[in-house]
Amino acid sequence: MIRDCIDACLDCVAACEACATACLAEPDLDMMRACVRLDRDCADVCALTARLLMRGSDLHARACALCASACEACAAECGQHHHDHCQRCAEACRRCAELCRKMAA
Amino acid sequence: MIRDCIDACLDCVAACEACATACLAEPDLDMMRACVRLDRDCADVCALTARLLMRGSDLHARACALCASACEACAAECGQHHHDHCQRCAEACRRCAELCRKMAA
Amino acid sequence: MIRDCIDACLDCVAACEACATACLAEPDLDMMRACVRLDRDCADVCALTARLLMRGSDLHARACALCASACEACAAECGQHHHDHCQRCAEACRRCAELCRKMAA
Amino acid sequence: MIRDCIDACLDCVAACEACATACLAEPDLDMMRACVRLDRDCADVCALTARLLMRGSDLHARACALCASACEACAAECGQHHHDHCQRCAEACRRCAELCRKMAA
Repeated sequence: MIRDCIDACLDCVAACEACATACLAEPDLDMMRACVRLDRDCADVCALTARLLMRGSDLHARACALCASACEACAAECGQHHHDHCQRCAEACRRCAELCRKMAA
Repeated sequence: MIRDCIDACLDCVAACEACATACLAEPDLDMMRACVRLDRDCADVCALTARLLMRGSDLHARACALCASACEACAAECGQHHHDHCQRCAEACRRCAELCRKMAA
Repeated sequence: MIRDCIDACLDCVAACEACATACLAEPDLDMMRACVRLDRDCADVCALTARLLMRGSDLHARACALCASACEACAAECGQHHHDHCQRCAEACRRCAELCRKMAA
Repeated sequence: MIRDCIDACLDCVAACEACATACLAEPDLDMMRACVRLDRDCADVCALTARLLMRGSDLHARACALCASACEACAAECGQHHHDHCQRCAEACRRCAELCRKMAA
């Protein structure tokens, strides 16, 4: 369960980083502003959460709650865009949010 | 208010990093186990919180709530030790916790 | 000297975070693509470097060399834009690059 | 090749985090001081390097060079200890150092 949550966080970091970079190269960048902004936050929060889980921190449940919020916000935005990188990111965010909600409970 | 909270977070990162390094050089390291562990978590959470505040993230209030918890746990442990680095760290943690609680409200 | 370098790194993190957020809200976002991309890298590298300096890591000189490169690339890009946030960021990057080059030597 | 290097960095973060936590619970903590110190640095540098690789940063080769140094130092220390967590960490560090050296070249 912890291992799955760590993996989901790391997948989400990778998807958010790739999505932000790809958004910044899109012709319709004007529509991707919120996407880049949320990718940035989500990657940072997922990265921290993964590390707190890896080290068995007492804060891991609280961090997972924050992480679920970050992932849900990012999924809601990315899910609105048709680009492959956005769809992949939204999927990684949803999966991570789901596992983090369970860890936080 | 935001600027004060960022400064308090960064002071706390510096105090925790210095305290962890100093603990790892103490003759009575056996008593400092929890201190190093909590310094590590607190520094990471404060660093993330400072950056979310700097960038005006929508997640800043939730991150501040997590940060206050991290700081309170670290202050409670470090405050029990007489070493100067622990006392300085406990003080930085208390200050950061106080400002983060306000930002989170 | 170390304290000055830490402060310069943290100022640079703050300037890069603020610049990236402000760029993402600019009407001429199309011209700010590289700026956002480099702000992101520079903020991350400066944040790590500050923490390695705070903890007295053996890696600090090598990290400062990487940090100087990150700052120089970001300053070169941001310095080309007339926006206040870009000019402030370029200045913070130049200052950080200068101090990091000294620490790396 | 990039994907392998990212995976090696993330495995190394996980191994270092687990090793640091486990060291802090060892009866012979007095002998593990350098191990905890180097685990901390190595985890931070590997985490940054993974993210720069994920996002396709121009700095990735320079970061990989720093990362290889961090991993080699950590492997040299952890490799001297018989604990399972140290041996696993040393192995993850060696693998990450090898792939980072290639990426840096």
